[in-house]
Amino acid sequence: LLLASRAPRRHHQGMAKHSEFRLIDRLARATRVPRRDVVHGIGDDAAVLRVPARHELVVSMDTLISGVHFPENTAPVDIGWKTLAVNLSDMAAMGATPAWATLALTMPRGDARWIDAFARGFARLARQHNVALVGGDTTRGALSITVQAHGFVPQGRAVLRSGARVGHRVYVSGTLGDGAAGLALVQKRLRTRNAAAVKFLRARLDRPVPRVGLGVALRGIAGACIDVSDGLAQDLGHVLRASGVGAAIELSRLPVSRALRAVGVDDATLQRWQLGGGDDYELCFTAAPKHAATIAAIATRLRVPITDVGRIERGDALELRDNTGRPVARSRAGHDHFA
Amino acid sequence: LLLASRAPRRHHQGMAKHSEFRLIDRLARATRVPRRDVVHGIGDDAAVLRVPARHELVVSMDTLISGVHFPENTAPVDIGWKTLAVNLSDMAAMGATPAWATLALTMPRGDARWIDAFARGFARLARQHNVALVGGDTTRGALSITVQAHGFVPQGRAVLRSGARVGHRVYVSGTLGDGAAGLALVQKRLRTRNAAAVKFLRARLDRPVPRVGLGVALRGIAGACIDVSDGLAQDLGHVLRASGVGAAIELSRLPVSRALRAVGVDDATLQRWQLGGGDDYELCFTAAPKHAATIAAIATRLRVPITDVGRIERGDALELRDNTGRPVARSRAGHDHFA
Repeated sequence: LLLASRAPRRHHQGMAKHSEFRLIDRLARATRVPRRDVVHGIGDDAAVLRVPARHELVVSMDTLISGVHFPENTAPVDIGWKTLAVNLSDMAAMGATPAWATLALTMPRGDARWIDAFARGFARLARQHNVALVGGDTTRGALSITVQAHGFVPQGRAVLRSGARVGHRVYVSGTLGDGAAGLALVQKRLRTRNAAAVKFLRARLDRPVPRVGLGVALRGIAGACIDVSDGLAQDLGHVLRASGVGAAIELSRLPVSRALRAVGVDDATLQRWQLGGGDDYELCFTAAPKHAATIAAIATRLRVPITDVGRIERGDALELRDNTGRPVARSRAGHDHFA
Repeated sequence: LLLASRAPRRHHQGMAKHSEFRLIDRLARATRVPRRDVVHGIGDDAAVLRVPARHELVVSMDTLISGVHFPENTAPVDIGWKTLAVNLSDMAAMGATPAWATLALTMPRGDARWIDAFARGFARLARQHNVALVGGDTTRGALSITVQAHGFVPQGRAVLRSGARVGHRVYVSGTLGDGAAGLALVQKRLRTRNAAAVKFLRARLDRPVPRVGLGVALRGIAGACIDVSDGLAQDLGHVLRASGVGAAIELSRLPVSRALRAVGVDDATLQRWQLGGGDDYELCFTAAPKHAATIAAIATRLRVPITDVGRIERGDALELRDNTGRPVARSRAGHDHFA
């Protein structure tokens, strides 16, 4: 059911009809992005949309729960941004060009100020990528936001997790561990007087930048791709499992931001955050060595750092190596999640 | 993010990774419907899907919250059914043929028995309509389910709310008020010893049957269409507002089930349930008088009762008339929701 179409069933204890309609109106106004492929947007029982010829539709859905996926004191403007960002990050990981979003917003009461701030954050990112909000639902309950992103790829050009091949290099965009450091700052497990570092790391946690342009540029170049949302070890593990391969990662190559270096955590913490922290929303992808120059050119053109961190190997293990090439840890990527 | 792809960020307090993966696996197994237009389903960062040539994509999203959209003691098998049914009902209201669904499930803990029952109900309805579950997300929190349904219409053939014209007849499928009666039974505001009636009315509340076949049959015949989820008065009001017209409904024509007649509620209650009860998931549509015979033939072919309950008129009012044609109530459909 679409935003403008649905009040909660009145015999239950839904949000008051009038306040809901006003909230929807605010959201729709703030996020309006005109697109010719939206035949009918918000305001009917469903949206009617046009996928371009010779393209496939790519859809991802992600729920953010207050206190689980973002700290409870996160500013609503950042929640609005992040809820769209994590979905656009999935579009990026597929090499898809994002087009439309739907939004299911559950909140305890109809709070117009909260909605306005949320909509501002959502709309800012939506406009950057020309993403139209085409529908959704608002309901009353504990704060929770589900967004579905919709994008396009030319037929057969989606970049999957299953395309990693032995001999491919493993790359990551941007830097790793910043999201985890940002969360540690929020939770006061990390303290620093470096205000610039705090600002940078908090922004990395609260307003992740989905690598949409990079994802599109990697079509036909990357063998496999995934976004780093749960930590490199786990996310690369998904690629290895889907592709039936192993990988060796050189720990000293993992890209670290200046801000994260500046806060001065010990090596074990840094490594834990980089490999397992999550919330970085960078892309991890594999590519044949022959594409190295092209990838360097893409990095320059898009001004996105891209780092070669290791290699796809035979087997099913993710092996971590120190800078002398000696293995320091090893996990069986293919089985972790089904133990 | 897709069902098989995402554990909650580990630094927050998400559902345990392992249990989540098992839940997802169960859901995916139970609801597997093979479709050739699903290029990549569950298991990557996003699903890759193919919309047929010369068709438009129709999407609707609806959230069901425990205690708001269904009574807290609703059986999980019924929650599974209903959460898909309310979205397929939106497809029906657009004249769309459903194809795919995505599911965001938030629950307090990974309860495999609950998931199995939920998946059974969801899958039963999904298989009836050949709807493939192509993705989603599972998270930890208060019980809440968001489903997005995806369907197709031939280009330009979606049935909108805005197509009602003066002189059109107003039709409703099935019977009205049963959902409200079912809820009154659950909440013990209604009591009866008629076990057959209880069974029927509870089923109408818990396992609504989306009028998918009827919606498709009405393409090119119905001027406007909406599903009756919030009560006829409110839902028809949306049609009137979108179309810039009014309507006159003859109260005595509103279709009542034998079960609802049998429980013996007073006329005022019956009328309130029929006009404002919601949860019936019937279609309300308008059509030019010349289509009357075709509509009767559709009703016979699909074995769905279709009742002519009134007429589209000039103005912006919804007028309720008794069986002598005398107005008994009047509301301004165009303004109710923006007061």
